[in-house]
Amino acid sequence: MNSKALYLISYGLYVITSCNGEIKNGQVANTVFQISSDPVTIAVSINKNNLTNQFIRESKLFTVSVLSKDAPLSLIGNFGFKSGRDVDKFSNVNYATNGTGVAYLTEGTLAYLAAEVIDEEDAGTHTIFIGKVTEAEVLKDGVPMTYAYYHQVKKGGTPKTAPVAVPKEKGGENKMDKYVCSVCGYVYDPEAGDEEHDITPGTPFEKLPDDWVCPVCGAGKEEFEKE
Amino acid sequence: MNSKALYLISYGLYVITSCNGEIKNGQVANTVFQISSDPVTIAVSINKNNLTNQFIRESKLFTVSVLSKDAPLSLIGNFGFKSGRDVDKFSNVNYATNGTGVAYLTEGTLAYLAAEVIDEEDAGTHTIFIGKVTEAEVLKDGVPMTYAYYHQVKKGGTPKTAPVAVPKEKGGENKMDKYVCSVCGYVYDPEAGDEEHDITPGTPFEKLPDDWVCPVCGAGKEEFEKE
Repeated sequence: MNSKALYLISYGLYVITSCNGEIKNGQVANTVFQISSDPVTIAVSINKNNLTNQFIRESKLFTVSVLSKDAPLSLIGNFGFKSGRDVDKFSNVNYATNGTGVAYLTEGTLAYLAAEVIDEEDAGTHTIFIGKVTEAEVLKDGVPMTYAYYHQVKKGGTPKTAPVAVPKEKGGENKMDKYVCSVCGYVYDPEAGDEEHDITPGTPFEKLPDDWVCPVCGAGKEEFEKE
Repeated sequence: MNSKALYLISYGLYVITSCNGEIKNGQVANTVFQISSDPVTIAVSINKNNLTNQFIRESKLFTVSVLSKDAPLSLIGNFGFKSGRDVDKFSNVNYATNGTGVAYLTEGTLAYLAAEVIDEEDAGTHTIFIGKVTEAEVLKDGVPMTYAYYHQVKKGGTPKTAPVAVPKEKGGENKMDKYVCSVCGYVYDPEAGDEEHDITPGTPFEKLPDDWVCPVCGAGKEEFEKE
């Protein structure tokens, strides 16, 4: 089996949010698709270890925030590489609350869908939730973030609970060393720099400011290892 | 509910194939995602009215052919706008047969996955099949076809990256009329022409050869209506 064949499946990138009473939680997911159009239903696959899974199972409610291509890596890092068991992921992001009381993002987001779970399927490590869409609104014009764009252009990492791992690129001998964030898997590529922190392409890792942090998860330079 | 929010979900484009003994059938689908990595499982959503759904339910086997960005519209039309109850969709395409006896495409295809159904979920108009992946192979290098790209092309617009963009004259008297295929919804845009049939941009619908057919579904000129 060549796992590279699996990387050719195309995905968007979303923040899936649910709640437990007043407590909000959300996480990044790439596995959303529409099932039927009458009624409008969607499916989303969520790892059973994640707090969001627990919240959705109990509340039967979730929202899908469709991330924009220009969503900052820090937003993805906040929802993709932290656990709602440790931090309040909503403390530093802009959000609103929909008619059923579930939050959705209002930054880095093109549109949101709100759904009520009408069925769920145990799929081993994950649960596939089938939701009847109760709200669907466009927030702004733009191009959706795709999973491929996130990995290729944004150089983002993949959390351990995600179904899809992405292959690492091997650098040539003369190239400046790439450094990998041991927390989230983000790769600092000196040839690309770090647009989000105004680091120009061509800046070696060693020349990054001491207070530079991983644009995805916020880890310090000391958490990085040579690739 | 603003249905435009649903259009912002990102998808790839696939041909899903199954069999009933020696009889092959396949159809286009955009709803494929990976669920877990150990074992590798994938989900696909298939309309219950489709012959492929019946074949998968009975054989418990399917393959996913990941279409390439350069797959011809006629290939998508063959698998997306015809029924295996009426025609043998495999009569004019290149394919191979995997270890479980299910066909997969070898043209317009970057990779294929073969799966055995381990569970299925009744989702109203559709069935979500959960498959354990038994084979996964890359057939050639390339960029996957996305649903968004397919629609962009299908509507006959000019991509932004094209060297010569034809300015649109909205409401102008000299603007050539677009024609819509009543069978599949393909739009013939004279400004774009029809690359698959060597029709140069700027060719009005009326000047198309009498034997010109819809590049998606193969319908004749008489099936087209002014947009």
